[in-house]
Amino acid sequence: MSQPNIALLGLGLIGSSLGHAFKKYGLAAHVSGYARSAQTRARAAALGFVDSVHDTPEAACAEADIVFFNTPLSAIKALAEKIVPTLKDGAIITDVGSVKAGVIGDIKPLLQDRVHLVPGHPIAGTEQSGPDAGFAELFEGRWCILTPEGDANLYAVETIANLWRQMGSEVEFMDAGHHDLVLAITSHLPHLIAYNIVGTAAQLENDTRSAVIKYSASGFRDFTRIAASDPIMWRDIFLQNKEAVLEMLGRFSEDLTALQRAIRHGDGDYLENTFTTTRSIRRSIIEAGQDVDLPNFGRDQRDASETD
Amino acid sequence: MSQPNIALLGLGLIGSSLGHAFKKYGLAAHVSGYARSAQTRARAAALGFVDSVHDTPEAACAEADIVFFNTPLSAIKALAEKIVPTLKDGAIITDVGSVKAGVIGDIKPLLQDRVHLVPGHPIAGTEQSGPDAGFAELFEGRWCILTPEGDANLYAVETIANLWRQMGSEVEFMDAGHHDLVLAITSHLPHLIAYNIVGTAAQLENDTRSAVIKYSASGFRDFTRIAASDPIMWRDIFLQNKEAVLEMLGRFSEDLTALQRAIRHGDGDYLENTFTTTRSIRRSIIEAGQDVDLPNFGRDQRDASETD
Repeated sequence: MSQPNIALLGLGLIGSSLGHAFKKYGLAAHVSGYARSAQTRARAAALGFVDSVHDTPEAACAEADIVFFNTPLSAIKALAEKIVPTLKDGAIITDVGSVKAGVIGDIKPLLQDRVHLVPGHPIAGTEQSGPDAGFAELFEGRWCILTPEGDANLYAVETIANLWRQMGSEVEFMDAGHHDLVLAITSHLPHLIAYNIVGTAAQLENDTRSAVIKYSASGFRDFTRIAASDPIMWRDIFLQNKEAVLEMLGRFSEDLTALQRAIRHGDGDYLENTFTTTRSIRRSIIEAGQDVDLPNFGRDQRDASETD
Repeated sequence: MSQPNIALLGLGLIGSSLGHAFKKYGLAAHVSGYARSAQTRARAAALGFVDSVHDTPEAACAEADIVFFNTPLSAIKALAEKIVPTLKDGAIITDVGSVKAGVIGDIKPLLQDRVHLVPGHPIAGTEQSGPDAGFAELFEGRWCILTPEGDANLYAVETIANLWRQMGSEVEFMDAGHHDLVLAITSHLPHLIAYNIVGTAAQLENDTRSAVIKYSASGFRDFTRIAASDPIMWRDIFLQNKEAVLEMLGRFSEDLTALQRAIRHGDGDYLENTFTTTRSIRRSIIEAGQDVDLPNFGRDQRDASETD
């Protein structure tokens, strides 16, 4: 194909960033958009990161060569059931969801070899949400993981991979199950823990809670930023990646109990050893060049964590 | 007094930052320094943030009007026993420790009304450590909490408070026990959890661990930065603030178990409600102006050059 027609289903942070990026880099002949909320649709039209907005997903996808699902995970199945029968032959469906096995399970049975599926997950985001939060550079210098199955159409896979590369991402291929396990520890568990500690603080007595807000820069603040992420999106992630998250959470809780015991019994050697071991992981991240977001267009400054 | 003679016991991140700040703002007639390690003493002399370095704490404090303890908490008691008998009448001891009740218990019994104690805690730091990590602006725009007892000498308290104000900090007074409880949730528990999740990841199978490092930007990376903090310092904090940390850790674990149960049973409403509640805390932090570090002098640079 020459420049494809691309449909965006879901016009929040990721959907709007995709639209902006397609425009900036000239990657689409036409970008059509659908969102469930009329307010979001109107906002998307006003912001101009789509060429047309539509009241139904079928209308948004009618002429599409590529369809991006950018909705919460729980919305995908019903949307796919609506649009797949109406798609052009050879159209490609892709997505940006944080759990990959579920998406494949939701969409694949509907395809009948007429439409291609290339599941994807850009490792990019901010704690903001909504159509106003997007920007074209969100994906620059970031990984995008694609998890096509072994029998996927190679042309479709390369089309999606190239799209991400043209937006500045580095594309990696991975088995969906392995993706879900890795993300359980790198993303899902950190978010769960951040939500949890902020929730614990929210239940403190009033005067202590005020002091917590006042002195949040001592470490807590970094957790509140993570815990400001979209609740619906994260609800769906934990429901869809249940097994891997419960597995990692089990390991985390065992380790935390051991630290708790060391504190109770005054076992300074255990604490010191544990705190020393973790430095090697930080070192590996720095050596792998993953310690800084290289392009940082207009995002909140990610400041150094407070450690005192 | 006109400009005081100030002794720094401990020449790591905080000690060196104090020295640089005293120089920058002209707050001391003479800055003397002591560190246990000869290497650190030599480095401090070379960097020039002290006017003199000494092989013993007594020598460093001989002419001091003000003594700052900037060592790990576990070193304070033995140091205080050495220097207090040799201090000038009316000298002031202060510190920068993250737990305040323990410092008071360690030092107060030695003072005999001849020397004043003004415990302090600047809410400032980075994940760096050592004499090369310090910079004069570390305390600018940050809170410094002082926890003098009710019968403390008012002149001594105001002297220390003014010193912090001249370094750009905003000074707050708080009861030592309340400080330790608040910091248990804003700082000590976040650090414990960050150390713990990084430790959990460090024990993963090799291939998964490589992927964790590669995709750390999805949330995990923020925890590794916190978990790169000085192990000895944090060992001492958990040992000294045991009761408050165990109390907050107990609440955290209960809440986490409830989230775990909701994931296992597919209770999306519970997850969504929890994740929505936490947003109000983030909003309060933003409204309180605690969401950004206003001065951020060259910190990214130091982050990139981190070696341990």
